Amino acid sequence: MAEDNSDQQPEEKQQRGSNDNVVFIGGKPFMNYVTGVVMQFTTQGANEIIIKARGKFISRAVDIAEVATKRFLEEQVFVKDIKIDSEEFKNKEGKQVRVSTIELTLGRK
Amino acid sequence: MAEDNSDQQPEEKQQRGSNDNVVFIGGKPFMNYVTGVVMQFTTQGANEIIIKARGKFISRAVDIAEVATKRFLEEQVFVKDIKIDSEEFKNKEGKQVRVSTIELTLGRK
Repeated sequence: MAEDNSDQQPEEKQQRGSNDNVVFIGGKPFMNYVTGVVMQFTTQGANEIIIKARGKFISRAVDIAEVATKRFLEEQVFVKDIKIDSEEFKNKEGKQVRVSTIELTLGRK
Repeated sequence: MAEDNSDQQPEEKQQRGSNDNVVFIGGKPFMNYVTGVVMQFTTQGANEIIIKARGKFISRAVDIAEVATKRFLEEQVFVKDIKIDSEEFKNKEGKQVRVSTIELTLGRK
């Protein structure tokens, strides 16, 4: 998994400590994430999944939530909650930068 | 105002019929939108603003909401509600495509 975005570093850190009900959105193929979310509900029996993303991946996270709930799990899963926030961190040039984050909670109907 | 994105056409259509409390996010400079939102609260006396975006501009809409509420209008304005949805429309090649949308409602504290 190549890291082509310096702003993904904090995401990687979070990812290590995350539980199975959290899906972090990055630069992998779109359908990997959709399948991951759908499988958590269908084969892992999850009742709730949290899709997290930061920066430019926020648009993607919304797409994934929409495709998972409207195309694959219609009538079964819905967007239960959406939260946005900001995080501050130092980029590789040592500059303090702000990045927006989103958390989309999907739950069974 | 150059239109470099074919997927902005439906946005432009909506924009014409919108009221003053709705800010549509597109490709203009970032601070134009932040200033627009802040001014609606400070000089126009708005109690509520809805920031709308579609597709790749969703990440930007979240950034604008975060910067407006955390940097410029801290203690005054907060993110009251967030909704996501999808729209289907024909692109310029005549293909039916799906695009995600977001609506971020900012309100006075």
